[in-house]
Amino acid sequence: LHSQFKKIVVIGVGLIGGSFAKAVKQRGLAEEVCGFGRDAQKLQWGVDHQILDTFSVDIELAMKNCELVFLAVPLGSMEPMLKIIGPHLPEQCIVTDGGSAKQSFVNSSLKCLQNHLPYVLPAHPIAGKEVSGIEASDGDLYVDHRLILTPLEQTHEEVITKVTQLWQSLGAIVEKMRSDFHDEVFAATSHLPHFLAFNLVDLLNEHPELGDVFKYTAGGFRDFTRIASSDPVMWRDIGVYNSEAIAKWLRQYQASIANLADLVENQDAEALEKLFSRAKSARDKHIIKS
Amino acid sequence: LHSQFKKIVVIGVGLIGGSFAKAVKQRGLAEEVCGFGRDAQKLQWGVDHQILDTFSVDIELAMKNCELVFLAVPLGSMEPMLKIIGPHLPEQCIVTDGGSAKQSFVNSSLKCLQNHLPYVLPAHPIAGKEVSGIEASDGDLYVDHRLILTPLEQTHEEVITKVTQLWQSLGAIVEKMRSDFHDEVFAATSHLPHFLAFNLVDLLNEHPELGDVFKYTAGGFRDFTRIASSDPVMWRDIGVYNSEAIAKWLRQYQASIANLADLVENQDAEALEKLFSRAKSARDKHIIKS
Repeated sequence: LHSQFKKIVVIGVGLIGGSFAKAVKQRGLAEEVCGFGRDAQKLQWGVDHQILDTFSVDIELAMKNCELVFLAVPLGSMEPMLKIIGPHLPEQCIVTDGGSAKQSFVNSSLKCLQNHLPYVLPAHPIAGKEVSGIEASDGDLYVDHRLILTPLEQTHEEVITKVTQLWQSLGAIVEKMRSDFHDEVFAATSHLPHFLAFNLVDLLNEHPELGDVFKYTAGGFRDFTRIASSDPVMWRDIGVYNSEAIAKWLRQYQASIANLADLVENQDAEALEKLFSRAKSARDKHIIKS
Repeated sequence: LHSQFKKIVVIGVGLIGGSFAKAVKQRGLAEEVCGFGRDAQKLQWGVDHQILDTFSVDIELAMKNCELVFLAVPLGSMEPMLKIIGPHLPEQCIVTDGGSAKQSFVNSSLKCLQNHLPYVLPAHPIAGKEVSGIEASDGDLYVDHRLILTPLEQTHEEVITKVTQLWQSLGAIVEKMRSDFHDEVFAATSHLPHFLAFNLVDLLNEHPELGDVFKYTAGGFRDFTRIASSDPVMWRDIGVYNSEAIAKWLRQYQASIANLADLVENQDAEALEKLFSRAKSARDKHIIKS
């Protein structure tokens, strides 16, 4: 393993894959960054815009001499894609990804890449935007953002070192955790708020008796619901591939809302102020002001 | 009634009252903008910083020759304050306010100002920030923001006209609605999201087994929970003074979350995508991108 890669293949050149490709290219961390996908026109656009060096729509050609493959396809396409690349993986080629749920990727790897597990390293860059697509690729998307690695038991230490160094070179803050803990934490901090925001907008939208209710919303509502403008297909997949942890958090949230409704109904000023104060202190303490 | 006021009194010179005072003064819409409160030092600061022309800590002096009084105290102080100003109101002095719940102000007016009702006009400027206090006063806070009037049955038409013109001069988009409809709409579009955001932060904060969970949050979480950094006392009062509508919406939201948890548990990809797509379309259609 070297500190620079001969060839990196990015499968799924959207915002996450395209930003990774562009970041690697800009920093000269690979001799060749190759995009793989079905849409040759889109991939050519990536080459024209210095996001990719080369591209291929033929998986055998793409994987030739590849030292690291980065999967950035929707969660629902991860397992089918592992099946496709499996037969073409060069020995010692690192397989990593950028998916938002990790246990499902672990399970798919154990199923599809039994003979390649020391080189498999599931990963999740904590970065994103409400825009998507290759056009939104940003070589600095990962700077100062966390990157979570969830190694398999079988993953080689040197693979972990190599991938850690790569992401650190892209500016990310790299951390390791268990895949099930990852899914639990991100169900709480990312998946739950997204589902809550989608749900609120949908609830208001279903009440025509309120008239054009959205015109009475202000900046707070706009911020609160910004994540409800995210890609519905991506979030559908997250709901399906991290269903256990998300359902658990939704149930907990539901119970806490029932409790809050009781406090409001009882006009329990003291308890409301306590709850709101605790929340404000926690947020002001932990979240960077913006 | 004239298009310019001789004297306007602002009671409660925080963000809402201070911004109103400053906006009126900057536009020369009153010969005198007088602040009333208990904290002489704060009010003097307002005079020194061109937010107020004068101030008083004596209600009789403050109300002398007053043509319009704007109450911007916390909801819990509205009724006590109406009792205090009642005996000192000049004939034909307009009484209006900036509170976030309107039915409670209507009820308090009917109770405390029985002989003055034609001059009472409850109002709610749809503007705010997560900062508060006189120091945050902004003369352009109301520009291009909605201002909702909820007249009493008894309110004189010319009072409505006069207050409408005043707020329009401050840049606001003025609308009228029934006070109960107001409380219902804003319970849904403003109070509900605030309560949901406070509740999420508090829920995560209560789970030490997740470790320092907030460090794994990203921009989406920051935006979603920004309103959870709002003033706990103000929101406690909103919970108490609009309890019926808020409790109703919390219950509805709770039921819709139970349904969403079922969809996730069943990995119902089709229903999840449908819900998320409806929400995204509604938001993209109705909310100004930002």
